[in-house]
Amino acid sequence: MPPVIALVGKPDSGKTTMLEALIPILRGHGFQVGTIKHHVHAFEMDTPGKDTWRHKQAGAAIIALSSPTAVGVIRDVKGDSTVADLVDRYFNEVDLVIAEGYKHSNLPKIEVHRTAVAESPLAHRDATWIAMVSDAESEDDIPRFTPDDPEGLARFLIDRFLCPTSPPQASLMVDGRKIALNGFVETFIRQTVIGMTSSLKGCQNPRRITLRINNE
Amino acid sequence: MPPVIALVGKPDSGKTTMLEALIPILRGHGFQVGTIKHHVHAFEMDTPGKDTWRHKQAGAAIIALSSPTAVGVIRDVKGDSTVADLVDRYFNEVDLVIAEGYKHSNLPKIEVHRTAVAESPLAHRDATWIAMVSDAESEDDIPRFTPDDPEGLARFLIDRFLCPTSPPQASLMVDGRKIALNGFVETFIRQTVIGMTSSLKGCQNPRRITLRINNE
Repeated sequence: MPPVIALVGKPDSGKTTMLEALIPILRGHGFQVGTIKHHVHAFEMDTPGKDTWRHKQAGAAIIALSSPTAVGVIRDVKGDSTVADLVDRYFNEVDLVIAEGYKHSNLPKIEVHRTAVAESPLAHRDATWIAMVSDAESEDDIPRFTPDDPEGLARFLIDRFLCPTSPPQASLMVDGRKIALNGFVETFIRQTVIGMTSSLKGCQNPRRITLRINNE
Repeated sequence: MPPVIALVGKPDSGKTTMLEALIPILRGHGFQVGTIKHHVHAFEMDTPGKDTWRHKQAGAAIIALSSPTAVGVIRDVKGDSTVADLVDRYFNEVDLVIAEGYKHSNLPKIEVHRTAVAESPLAHRDATWIAMVSDAESEDDIPRFTPDDPEGLARFLIDRFLCPTSPPQASLMVDGRKIALNGFVETFIRQTVIGMTSSLKGCQNPRRITLRINNE
């Protein structure tokens, strides 16, 4: 099962907006994201009049609409599903599941808070809170990101849930001094050296490469 | 996996209408039905502007909407899904799956044909055709039901796919003559006799009961 986090916050605090910014960044890093939204009441997901809608109205317990690009399924249930059950059934293909809401669950939580909407964040924060997204100053002991920094939150999620071991990385020492590499240069150097190395006999899948150059 | 059949026919022949009549009858007999509809192009199942729709637009690979009465899931796929894969993933809780379309599959098929729409049924019928729903006379060697007889088709499906062994049934012989029993009377007599019998010591789960009454 993929890791699951909950994005919580007071109504209208910007949870969906943050998700809309976060998902493309995570995709850009090659990670597939799934989302779960809880709805308190019965919902109408299908479009009235369509064949699948007519099947459901007639009493089908489960309907599926299948196309070359997407599959949609609506199933009757008796009572709320747990996030664990939903993830187990439906989310095997993704790298991370983000549930919107579910603030009373025991999922790891990231709270979204905007001072324009609410003076203070949710009152019942507990040990499952792992980060805050807020435009307010605070002395939290958990990581905090501003609402305009989805990249920071994405990096946090990647480090914590998606690449818990060290990610591929190049480091460069020149004359005894470590040289800082930005993302592009780091990737460029790393992939160039891997490309050269893996073309050598017996080095098809290099794991750790140390390359020393003497130019004295 | 539940049994799966395909309801096929020329466009506008009344497949969905027949399904709308069929599903409540099957439910009335205590069977849960699932349906699958194939869509040739990309589809919009969710409602623009809703949170789950926004998640999907942002690039979520899978989204789920969960309520106390229903769960909806939309998942990206690359290429058409097979019916077998859909049934295996999503339809474990139902007793029968009816796919609308899929005329080129090897599923058992029931064709819907109305002379007002097309003079003749589909041309490429093969051994997977197990029944016809048609208002035309014909010398088919497969069972035929008229479009206004969804009960007949339901009975056929129950006998063939849902109760392949003999269903519970009461038969009544009076003075050497078999008496026809309609559904209500058959059920009433059967359940009354079962109820009486099963209250007797050692008869908690009676399987076959023969009750002879001499009133001479």
